[in-house]
Amino acid sequence: MNNKAFDSIRAIRWVDDHLQLLDQRLLPNEEIFLDIYLVSEAEDAIRNMVVRGAPAIGITVAYGAILSARQRYADDSQNWHEAWLKDLQGLGDARPTAVNAVWAVKQMQKAADEIENESPVAGLLQAAQAMHQNDIEGNYRMGEFGQALFHNNCSVITHCNTGALATGGYGTALGVIRAAAEQGKIAEVFADETRPWLQGSRLTAWELEKEGIPSRLIADSTAASLMRLGKADCAIVGADRIAANADVANKIGTYSLAVSAKAHGIPFYVAAPVSTIDMDTVCGDDIQIEVRAEEELLRIGEQAIAAPGARAYNPVFDVTPAELIDAIITDKGVVNNPNAEKIRQLMSGI
Amino acid sequence: MNNKAFDSIRAIRWVDDHLQLLDQRLLPNEEIFLDIYLVSEAEDAIRNMVVRGAPAIGITVAYGAILSARQRYADDSQNWHEAWLKDLQGLGDARPTAVNAVWAVKQMQKAADEIENESPVAGLLQAAQAMHQNDIEGNYRMGEFGQALFHNNCSVITHCNTGALATGGYGTALGVIRAAAEQGKIAEVFADETRPWLQGSRLTAWELEKEGIPSRLIADSTAASLMRLGKADCAIVGADRIAANADVANKIGTYSLAVSAKAHGIPFYVAAPVSTIDMDTVCGDDIQIEVRAEEELLRIGEQAIAAPGARAYNPVFDVTPAELIDAIITDKGVVNNPNAEKIRQLMSGI
Repeated sequence: MNNKAFDSIRAIRWVDDHLQLLDQRLLPNEEIFLDIYLVSEAEDAIRNMVVRGAPAIGITVAYGAILSARQRYADDSQNWHEAWLKDLQGLGDARPTAVNAVWAVKQMQKAADEIENESPVAGLLQAAQAMHQNDIEGNYRMGEFGQALFHNNCSVITHCNTGALATGGYGTALGVIRAAAEQGKIAEVFADETRPWLQGSRLTAWELEKEGIPSRLIADSTAASLMRLGKADCAIVGADRIAANADVANKIGTYSLAVSAKAHGIPFYVAAPVSTIDMDTVCGDDIQIEVRAEEELLRIGEQAIAAPGARAYNPVFDVTPAELIDAIITDKGVVNNPNAEKIRQLMSGI
Repeated sequence: MNNKAFDSIRAIRWVDDHLQLLDQRLLPNEEIFLDIYLVSEAEDAIRNMVVRGAPAIGITVAYGAILSARQRYADDSQNWHEAWLKDLQGLGDARPTAVNAVWAVKQMQKAADEIENESPVAGLLQAAQAMHQNDIEGNYRMGEFGQALFHNNCSVITHCNTGALATGGYGTALGVIRAAAEQGKIAEVFADETRPWLQGSRLTAWELEKEGIPSRLIADSTAASLMRLGKADCAIVGADRIAANADVANKIGTYSLAVSAKAHGIPFYVAAPVSTIDMDTVCGDDIQIEVRAEEELLRIGEQAIAAPGARAYNPVFDVTPAELIDAIITDKGVVNNPNAEKIRQLMSGI
């Protein structure tokens, strides 16, 4: 499963002694990797969306934990652990909605507990690299599970970017689309441009173009009309956090897409690794929804696009209730018509 | 009814011997009126969206008909009429979806038939100015009819620009919001930014800001989530063409908004003058939907926002079936739960 045709992009790399992140704010115009040596730089990179996408944030947190451990151990090899935990907290809180950051913090704490050497760096690096590799392999499995749900000649709508850029590599929802394309099942991808940050236009279109999967961008508000006209066979998105009852928090606009899919009887799929499932969150309304700066809606780059004095409301995620979701595709299998009981069963088997 | 507090904007003016159009492509950064002396310039202004909005297009067609008549009559005072009709055809076809252009062509033909002077210019000017004034007064009536549907402390979602800029003055859906604001009924307007042309960010926010009506811009995909969270009490939009069965063609994203409103039991209103009702179009699927250049989605101004090589699909209108519409607010009264029979009754009374 490690030699996928459609899989050339790695946005997160550990190179020798530091982390490199592809600066996703500059895509598609410039492909520049930032060199990250300090945990504070990793935290800023998450907050400022150099890296985004729940699984990619989780992996960045894991590598950030190594940077912190190296600094803190060098500062005080006896008492580095407390300062390290504080850094982890900062990494985990840099963006509130994606649960993978919290999950990665826990994984790195567990790894640290098991390290017997004096310096934690080598052991944590091993753990982070394993997490990264597991994410990619999980995406391959998700792709295989998910593509089986697609029929031939399928036109699919997707939202935001859920590809190699949003993950360790390959992708969640876009990974499923990649796997379906490898099987020759994709007629066309309609990619929502995904306002305000334009993940669709800048990132998803970039990935699809690189790999020759036929696609067109649409304004986010076009999806419902495509469904009414019979031009879309299904919709698939990723997730930033899945509650224990199978409610899904994901990029703003996901809920609108799900409502439209339900109204037209079109399957609506969510693809996410089990690390995105948060059994400590009972339901979607308990998920903290990040509200970002108004400027993200009022400007594009340096260019003002709104009237002077205009205000904006910019929640960047929303919650889609489980009953609108036909299947959640995970790295451990597909959960059809998901609900609390089925999620409990899935997670108890891990 | 002619002295509204909230009504300072006129985007279309006849000044001495020519037409002036506020260049809406440059708003909100620059407020520049273009001087239009030739019918070909008027046609280009419609096609290139110097002026937009169905009622405003209709009025521009009427003034354009004067420019043509003056030219054609000067060229050949005996046989000007045939060339004039050809110019009218060009004006009427400059954008296919809004029916008001076709309606204005018919009105000007009728006016020409009734002119007894040798030169048609003065008579046509009188007809165009009456049409313009009637549009404004119709908007005032629509505002009064429509605001009665709003309760106090109402949070309303609107889409695109339907204000003074889209009409002879005051507005259709935004006119209703203005009238409701005059009654102190508006808690807040959530204005869809309205991709790809950003009519909401550039034009609606500009109008609302000028008049001090509290408002915030949202990404178009946010509306459904606001409804789920109980933050929106109703939605109101304009129309580019209303079919005989009450199906409505309007700016892309209108249908998505209507689907969401229905799913949440929130009233969905359409405000449009009867000149937008096209009894020759049986149902919405018979309305030609304009597909504009991909570039409108791929660039903002000169700035590329999408991946190189990315394609886009850019239908700029969609059709909302009558059954999703709670009321159509016209200048001749409100049609609740509109259908073919009620539209027939409304139009037979005119």
